[in-house]
Amino acid sequence: MTGDLYLGYRNDDADTPFAKFFKPEMAALPQHVVEALQHGPQGGMALLAFDDAATVADEGYHQTENGYGILQDGSFQVSVRTDMPGVTPAMWVWWFGWHGCDTRRYKLWHPRAHLSAAWKDGDDAGRRGNQRYLGRWSMISEYIGSAMLNAAIQFVAPAALGLPADSDDAVTICARLGSGDAPVDVGWFVHHIRSTPGGSEMRSRFWMGGPHIEVRKAPGVASKAVRPIAARVLGNRAATARNLLVHCAQEMNHLAGFLAELHQNFGDE
Amino acid sequence: MTGDLYLGYRNDDADTPFAKFFKPEMAALPQHVVEALQHGPQGGMALLAFDDAATVADEGYHQTENGYGILQDGSFQVSVRTDMPGVTPAMWVWWFGWHGCDTRRYKLWHPRAHLSAAWKDGDDAGRRGNQRYLGRWSMISEYIGSAMLNAAIQFVAPAALGLPADSDDAVTICARLGSGDAPVDVGWFVHHIRSTPGGSEMRSRFWMGGPHIEVRKAPGVASKAVRPIAARVLGNRAATARNLLVHCAQEMNHLAGFLAELHQNFGDE
Repeated sequence: MTGDLYLGYRNDDADTPFAKFFKPEMAALPQHVVEALQHGPQGGMALLAFDDAATVADEGYHQTENGYGILQDGSFQVSVRTDMPGVTPAMWVWWFGWHGCDTRRYKLWHPRAHLSAAWKDGDDAGRRGNQRYLGRWSMISEYIGSAMLNAAIQFVAPAALGLPADSDDAVTICARLGSGDAPVDVGWFVHHIRSTPGGSEMRSRFWMGGPHIEVRKAPGVASKAVRPIAARVLGNRAATARNLLVHCAQEMNHLAGFLAELHQNFGDE
Repeated sequence: MTGDLYLGYRNDDADTPFAKFFKPEMAALPQHVVEALQHGPQGGMALLAFDDAATVADEGYHQTENGYGILQDGSFQVSVRTDMPGVTPAMWVWWFGWHGCDTRRYKLWHPRAHLSAAWKDGDDAGRRGNQRYLGRWSMISEYIGSAMLNAAIQFVAPAALGLPADSDDAVTICARLGSGDAPVDVGWFVHHIRSTPGGSEMRSRFWMGGPHIEVRKAPGVASKAVRPIAARVLGNRAATARNLLVHCAQEMNHLAGFLAELHQNFGDE
């Protein structure tokens, strides 16, 4: 979040062994995402309630695998699936640890929207597996639609949301999402990645706004003072939900296109 | 509108002879609907004026068969066509009478959005043909987009809007649409269904808001007091128009996929 914010690589940004994976062209949205956008906002009861977050680890699929809408509690919810041939769940565990310490790595993920990433603790030594992101805060700047977001992504253990521990066949990335500028949290997300015959699939779930707005580290506290800060992060609910669906689909599909090769080259770092 | 509202079938809801027609998966939107969504709101003069509603029964087609937009009088208008091979106009006359007395029947129509249906008069005996819905009020709860709507659908004779009486080749379902919670009406709709070589086509027309907001049974009266109630039903005009187009296209295409078989099994009820 410090220094110049700009999209893409400039000057000596490309002087890294991984720079060849910076691909400014992004693939078209998958047809199932296009259809979800065409349908527009869904009825709240057709969407996943936050209290049922852990069911993303169940076999089978939810009623709405791809879609967005506003829930009765005033929050908005987004769900999207990413099919990832040739990608394993473990590669994502590696990615969530590896990318966070370097803006140039973060930009590989979404070349049209990612601006900056750094660990809040500034530390990048010696950790492995999901210990590399669990309990840490990734401070990022990115566009969601046209809105620039400074966010604190606070990774938590899957158990915090009732999800099973990671295994070879399935892993879950869970985080509390808040403002990067003020101690206000606004949402949660879960990316559940499970093996499929040809690779894996990621099923992403976001809950934003409504009861998820809290003063950070003061659960249950949502004083009037934090509402303007939350509103700035969240924007118009239906519009932000739609833009978040597009953003997530873009970045996950884009990275999945070369994650296996990236991991093969840098998986030991 | 009484009792628990929930999507889909639960517990013993499926203990009916028609439950096998409850199909949670809905088909993709027809291409002509997708194109209408891509175009977005149309100029008011390209859309059908309420005073010209009766022209939906004329031969040929309107300038806008699929589209939505805001008219100069402040109302919003939605038009959409549903192609229905193997379906006859008479099957729709049967459907509009048959479904209204049972939430489980109503849910067949739009499994992702329909919550509840009942006749206001509570009566379901002995009527036939369009006498089964004409002059009656269907009290429904459904989602339009993410917004839950409690509505009173007040069916009127086609002649009330200048349309010809039903025939073997063409029928028209006409209704005044209002709040289910307060005596405030907000719109009108017409579904004109006519025979085609392979079945039939439905051409739906909605007019909502603007001059169509009235205190119920007090034509011409639209006191300031009813505006907040109408606004709650109507939401953001352009967004609701879009969501209504999607909703109508979904439910009509979905039901048309099995209406002939449903009618064959239950057409005598």
